[in-house]
Amino acid sequence: MDRLLDPLFGVGAVDAAFADLARLQGMLDFEAALARAEARLGLIPERAVAIIQAACDARRFDLDALGREAAAAGNPAIPMVKALTARVKAADPEAARYVHWGATSQDAMDTGLVLQLRVAIEYLQGDLARLAEALALLARDHRRTALAGRTWLQQALPTTLGRKAAGWLDAVTRQRARLGELRPRLMVVQFGGAAGTLAALGEHGMDVAAALAAELHLAAPALPWHAERDRVVEFGCWCGMTVGTVAKIARDIALMMQTEIAETFEPTGHGRGGSSTMPHKRNPVGAAVVLSAAHRAPGLVATLVGAMPQEHERGLGGWHAEWTALPDLVRLTAGALKVTADTVAGLEVRPERMRENLDVTDGLLMAEAVMMALADRLGRLAAHERVEAACKKAVSQGRSLRDVLADEADIAGAVDLDALFDPLGYVGTVDRMIDAALARHHQD
Amino acid sequence: MDRLLDPLFGVGAVDAAFADLARLQGMLDFEAALARAEARLGLIPERAVAIIQAACDARRFDLDALGREAAAAGNPAIPMVKALTARVKAADPEAARYVHWGATSQDAMDTGLVLQLRVAIEYLQGDLARLAEALALLARDHRRTALAGRTWLQQALPTTLGRKAAGWLDAVTRQRARLGELRPRLMVVQFGGAAGTLAALGEHGMDVAAALAAELHLAAPALPWHAERDRVVEFGCWCGMTVGTVAKIARDIALMMQTEIAETFEPTGHGRGGSSTMPHKRNPVGAAVVLSAAHRAPGLVATLVGAMPQEHERGLGGWHAEWTALPDLVRLTAGALKVTADTVAGLEVRPERMRENLDVTDGLLMAEAVMMALADRLGRLAAHERVEAACKKAVSQGRSLRDVLADEADIAGAVDLDALFDPLGYVGTVDRMIDAALARHHQD
Amino acid sequence: MDRLLDPLFGVGAVDAAFADLARLQGMLDFEAALARAEARLGLIPERAVAIIQAACDARRFDLDALGREAAAAGNPAIPMVKALTARVKAADPEAARYVHWGATSQDAMDTGLVLQLRVAIEYLQGDLARLAEALALLARDHRRTALAGRTWLQQALPTTLGRKAAGWLDAVTRQRARLGELRPRLMVVQFGGAAGTLAALGEHGMDVAAALAAELHLAAPALPWHAERDRVVEFGCWCGMTVGTVAKIARDIALMMQTEIAETFEPTGHGRGGSSTMPHKRNPVGAAVVLSAAHRAPGLVATLVGAMPQEHERGLGGWHAEWTALPDLVRLTAGALKVTADTVAGLEVRPERMRENLDVTDGLLMAEAVMMALADRLGRLAAHERVEAACKKAVSQGRSLRDVLADEADIAGAVDLDALFDPLGYVGTVDRMIDAALARHHQD
Amino acid sequence: MDRLLDPLFGVGAVDAAFADLARLQGMLDFEAALARAEARLGLIPERAVAIIQAACDARRFDLDALGREAAAAGNPAIPMVKALTARVKAADPEAARYVHWGATSQDAMDTGLVLQLRVAIEYLQGDLARLAEALALLARDHRRTALAGRTWLQQALPTTLGRKAAGWLDAVTRQRARLGELRPRLMVVQFGGAAGTLAALGEHGMDVAAALAAELHLAAPALPWHAERDRVVEFGCWCGMTVGTVAKIARDIALMMQTEIAETFEPTGHGRGGSSTMPHKRNPVGAAVVLSAAHRAPGLVATLVGAMPQEHERGLGGWHAEWTALPDLVRLTAGALKVTADTVAGLEVRPERMRENLDVTDGLLMAEAVMMALADRLGRLAAHERVEAACKKAVSQGRSLRDVLADEADIAGAVDLDALFDPLGYVGTVDRMIDAALARHHQD
Repeated sequence: MDRLLDPLFGVGAVDAAFADLARLQGMLDFEAALARAEARLGLIPERAVAIIQAACDARRFDLDALGREAAAAGNPAIPMVKALTARVKAADPEAARYVHWGATSQDAMDTGLVLQLRVAIEYLQGDLARLAEALALLARDHRRTALAGRTWLQQALPTTLGRKAAGWLDAVTRQRARLGELRPRLMVVQFGGAAGTLAALGEHGMDVAAALAAELHLAAPALPWHAERDRVVEFGCWCGMTVGTVAKIARDIALMMQTEIAETFEPTGHGRGGSSTMPHKRNPVGAAVVLSAAHRAPGLVATLVGAMPQEHERGLGGWHAEWTALPDLVRLTAGALKVTADTVAGLEVRPERMRENLDVTDGLLMAEAVMMALADRLGRLAAHERVEAACKKAVSQGRSLRDVLADEADIAGAVDLDALFDPLGYVGTVDRMIDAALARHHQD
Repeated sequence: MDRLLDPLFGVGAVDAAFADLARLQGMLDFEAALARAEARLGLIPERAVAIIQAACDARRFDLDALGREAAAAGNPAIPMVKALTARVKAADPEAARYVHWGATSQDAMDTGLVLQLRVAIEYLQGDLARLAEALALLARDHRRTALAGRTWLQQALPTTLGRKAAGWLDAVTRQRARLGELRPRLMVVQFGGAAGTLAALGEHGMDVAAALAAELHLAAPALPWHAERDRVVEFGCWCGMTVGTVAKIARDIALMMQTEIAETFEPTGHGRGGSSTMPHKRNPVGAAVVLSAAHRAPGLVATLVGAMPQEHERGLGGWHAEWTALPDLVRLTAGALKVTADTVAGLEVRPERMRENLDVTDGLLMAEAVMMALADRLGRLAAHERVEAACKKAVSQGRSLRDVLADEADIAGAVDLDALFDPLGYVGTVDRMIDAALARHHQD
Repeated sequence: MDRLLDPLFGVGAVDAAFADLARLQGMLDFEAALARAEARLGLIPERAVAIIQAACDARRFDLDALGREAAAAGNPAIPMVKALTARVKAADPEAARYVHWGATSQDAMDTGLVLQLRVAIEYLQGDLARLAEALALLARDHRRTALAGRTWLQQALPTTLGRKAAGWLDAVTRQRARLGELRPRLMVVQFGGAAGTLAALGEHGMDVAAALAAELHLAAPALPWHAERDRVVEFGCWCGMTVGTVAKIARDIALMMQTEIAETFEPTGHGRGGSSTMPHKRNPVGAAVVLSAAHRAPGLVATLVGAMPQEHERGLGGWHAEWTALPDLVRLTAGALKVTADTVAGLEVRPERMRENLDVTDGLLMAEAVMMALADRLGRLAAHERVEAACKKAVSQGRSLRDVLADEADIAGAVDLDALFDPLGYVGTVDRMIDAALARHHQD
Repeated sequence: MDRLLDPLFGVGAVDAAFADLARLQGMLDFEAALARAEARLGLIPERAVAIIQAACDARRFDLDALGREAAAAGNPAIPMVKALTARVKAADPEAARYVHWGATSQDAMDTGLVLQLRVAIEYLQGDLARLAEALALLARDHRRTALAGRTWLQQALPTTLGRKAAGWLDAVTRQRARLGELRPRLMVVQFGGAAGTLAALGEHGMDVAAALAAELHLAAPALPWHAERDRVVEFGCWCGMTVGTVAKIARDIALMMQTEIAETFEPTGHGRGGSSTMPHKRNPVGAAVVLSAAHRAPGLVATLVGAMPQEHERGLGGWHAEWTALPDLVRLTAGALKVTADTVAGLEVRPERMRENLDVTDGLLMAEAVMMALADRLGRLAAHERVEAACKKAVSQGRSLRDVLADEADIAGAVDLDALFDPLGYVGTVDRMIDAALARHHQD
């Protein structure tokens, strides 16, 4: 735990789920459940179970010592099993023989990881729902709040903030659906023994796997997945996509917060982002967190994908690379998601600045709208030529397009220029788009 | 097209789907379908459709000229629309007004891309099925072909080649399921106009989108996704995972092909991988292709994930980065998949070398098996101590563990040493695991 | 060659250096030089040289056939040697025996690559010099052109465009120095034979290597580097950093081009970035290219770094991954660099908009400057309190800070408000910074 | 600090250099040096210095509180300055005014980082020297220890372990040279104030920068580098390349440790890599650490390269991404380097197994050597044909190549078959290569 940076980027609950203690407890929960499962099938004595289970409390272990021994052994499960066995032995030497029965280090570590991920996913689902709800509100409330649609960082045509939010929302809705699809593939036990055959359990291996899964409220996979890592990589990819999805929102907000644009602002509170000597500043502190996650996530996703070709029955280095890469990725995903949900929920919107910015091109932004309207009267070609000429005149004379057009009697007589230059008159089917995004959100 | 390298790494059909001509044709198919859709809704004259459609033949365009103009315009759709309009105009100046009606460059490019991806996916699905079938055969045929299970690149315990193949198969089965899930999200049109509002089409935008989708046998999304790129990124992640999945197989085979191990070989034919001056060599030419893909895919996946936070209604640079990254990724995925399917389908298996390699530790590999068997007779603790001592003696005297144990009368009398040292006697529940993987495969 | 996209992102000269033909010619140049070197040392007959050399003309080879055979052989050098040998044999069967004498495929491919890179580096050095010169001019000419310094995308304090350009310039100067340092490490032959021992040449191996290097005007390394890839990876990292360096410039320019900011513009010409229906748009077409390179380069750098741990004397997959990753990276670096040099050389600067944007906070941007100036008169604490209060009043009353302060008699009497609110009065030591950057540039 | 994993992958001294406390102390060292520098130039009162300096002790700060406040402020320097100011104020309210005078958060954070990196580099240089020395010894001692040279994971021709080590060594020597080149670019202060102009210090900014640099024994750069990040990215790339360089060594050793090959072993001690139930296992525990670093480093390098295009005078998200990515990268580089140095220094070499493995192809490995030797007697073409035929016979009859050739009277009479089949007779110029690598090492 990095005390200076974690509170900046992280989420307490998820950070805790990947801290030393939780990592150890995940493995111990595996060991306790394994003992219960094996006893249920009559493979180990029933009386050993309570003793083993009692010893499976991470708070009683010496994490520093385990770390040092892990460095020699090659992974933390080996010294964990040793320390657990010693604890059980102190209570009952006979019971000690049944600790970790038939399992291998990776069984404990992977299953422990799945248990940690279950906690994280629950949190992520909560914040995804919260973000989606905030976006839905924004889409509904600002359905008709006009602002400049921007492409290539240039104003293009008008749109509405509600439409913008609907686009963000629909991407979040898709991420929620994807999580629903992958979750069952991920929420499985790992149990294969030293070479993925469960040899030490003779004919009973698969039954133990099933019982173990039941104990932990996980599913049992068709077979062990020690060296087939797609389950965790799929989740890692999902995390990367989630970060990308919320970073798109954060980037848009940060761009709209620019001093010269000033259309939306992150919620303040706790003096976030202010400066005493630069009183005009409203630093997008939340966006910085989210965008930093967007810089870090792709490399972590690449690490997971790149570590997939693991050798034979258990690989060398690839699996080890996951140990920190996946938790780091999950933690920064949770952090980015939380910050985005907070930001959207408290977003300060300035419709008047949006409207002012729509006027920054002196009406040129509406040229296409005018052209379309005149086409009915003058024919398309003539409309195009007239408007193009008017635009050139506006630019060269430093006047607004509306004023230039007002001078042209046939045009001014034929159309209602006020209506034509109303940005909300040229936002197409944003209403139906917003409704469609809301409908999908509500199905979710 | 790189003539020296593409045949090495690529798949003709998929390479063609992403070549210049297909990229252009994809965009032209969009334009033709758009005209049909708009005519069906009465937005453009019916007689314009045939003329536009006739002009939408990529073979008649000058690709070099389009490329040069793309460099000035910023994307290839802009000069494509210009050139198309010129062609239509030559036939019917009136019809030329309705080319690309209401659309923006990205609508053509993204929809065209989806059409290219549809071709690629069909190919990928075929080769996935072929690979799965070959793996299923391997799992079935070599159910009881014993070989050393290896962890950390060290022999651990026996397993069977069928079990190994079942692990590979199940991962492929999961990839097929994932593709089935994501495909409907990806097979959608892009249609939003200059700012994602479809403003130029007034009230009809969404209806045109629906009609356009129907024309192209694609779905219509809730709203345009110009700057929400999760659909293509999801597919990119899937490609990365597919490469990782097949590279795991390739790596295992290459390791088993090592001169000193020699358990499996890639199919020969066409003098693949041989050397006249080094007649013993059997270069894993296929594995080199697949593993090179495994080095390249993660970076491409990272590029796609990292490009997600695209600015406002259409971004700057992020979308442009997809133009080559995604096709490159799809092409190397197709290549890696094809090579792996070929390799597995023609895999040369040497059961006798597998058996010889199981003896390389002079029986130490079976120590755990012996220990488990003796535990019933001697009690677990005693069994452990006796076998450990025998192992030490075997190592220090340079004898086989079986010989050492044969000297110990009580042990030799109590158990059948021949049976004990049979690797197939200690492979746990590989049969049930193989059956489970085959069952999931057949459900597919 | 992708005819639709290459002209958009690439540089003709560098694209050509990595095209099929140049790749093949690079290998053939190696073969010709090897024959000359070996003849010079008396290892092969002198009369074979001219015949081999005459055959080493890439234009006479069938690239399609080589590609197909490369796919079977595992690399393009094997069929190249076969085809070359056949050509030589047709002229002189005896001479054919000495083709590729003592070399291995990778010797030809790596040395050929180095020759391609030499061409690319020459180009890169030229464009780096051009960019540096354009930046130096900008730094000099706009030494006192005030604009808002921005941090977190918020206006912070004034700076000058010259200072901004000096920062860009100094980074480019460092990249030029780094290229100078790495170039000698990279410009070396690869020559080691089948296992890096040059065994086929007996005692003469190292002498041939030296002679070969001399023929090609390259250096001879201490020993072959078939599986130690740091030389090419170092260059790849340099490329990545170069892209990052120019993308920082491109991003700044694109942000300054935003419709609402409008401080600088990319050069137009050839209708770059314009739109007929959206006449106000000035799309940053060049920035899109450069920023797309910035999205793609990191993944390619990662591929090269990740491919470094190559197995034994020649690796499996890692080397193969370089074949496309490095050329792709060099090409996009050249493209990004060229576009940036063009952009900076033709940059349209709008000092008046910069000045207007400095006023967008109604003077709050100058609060710190005012505070520092008043500190001498009122003491620091009092100055801080007075200015803070004035800022609050300005915001709440919607007035400019200058007006608010003008109301306060003691302040208005004590200081020259006009001077205080001159942004150029509060730009610190930008002059010395610019001079320092220019001095380093001129040393270069 | 992760107590379960850090001891596995990390190096205590370097981990400590990047722990919370050292991060904070780095910033405080900046603040103390800044006060000294400004007092020296008469910009702040001399008596403030001692008070500020006394307060700059990280151990007295509340890290948890700083972390919480950092989350609101956006970076840890802001609350650090607040807390430091409070401490100074408690001692002397007047002195408190001069804390952090003229600086910005990033000045403290970046300079603090450079100070942390200085500690890490010293450590890295020590371990690089240690590794180089161990490799030089290996190269010298095993100059004539024959083993199979392997390409594509296939035996190719003989080489020697000394040659192998010389190749590893030369790559390490190059990394040492690169570190020497980049170090001066990196060991510079960061000092620019809020917008990189040092405006708050009037004319004195650059002088303060120079004095500050002198206080910290760092250099002063031409100008601040808040948003030009090439200095730290260059070091990150170097780290990635260092990991790649040592991972190549680790991969080779792990492959040679395979049960079936057994040519080298990592040092044991502390029961590293052993297993009680699988007594034959010698897990390459060190290689796992190094190879896991090789999976993680590329993604971190990509993050740093990808974060380079930072906006304007200080960026949004890119800089923040460096905060963890660079320390993570440095730490895993130090860990991978240490483990490799330990492994090489204690490497267990089995020359007899190397020799046995050279015989695994029944002499086919020597076919090229035989062919070269016979060429002098029979002419090249005849030699080639005879040896090729003999190889085929050997394979088809399951005999050794030497036996087959012994049957052929003219050959057996013409050459000394024993000498011909001595692998050390066909290792080319490995001696000169080793000498060349040692010479470069000793120059270092």
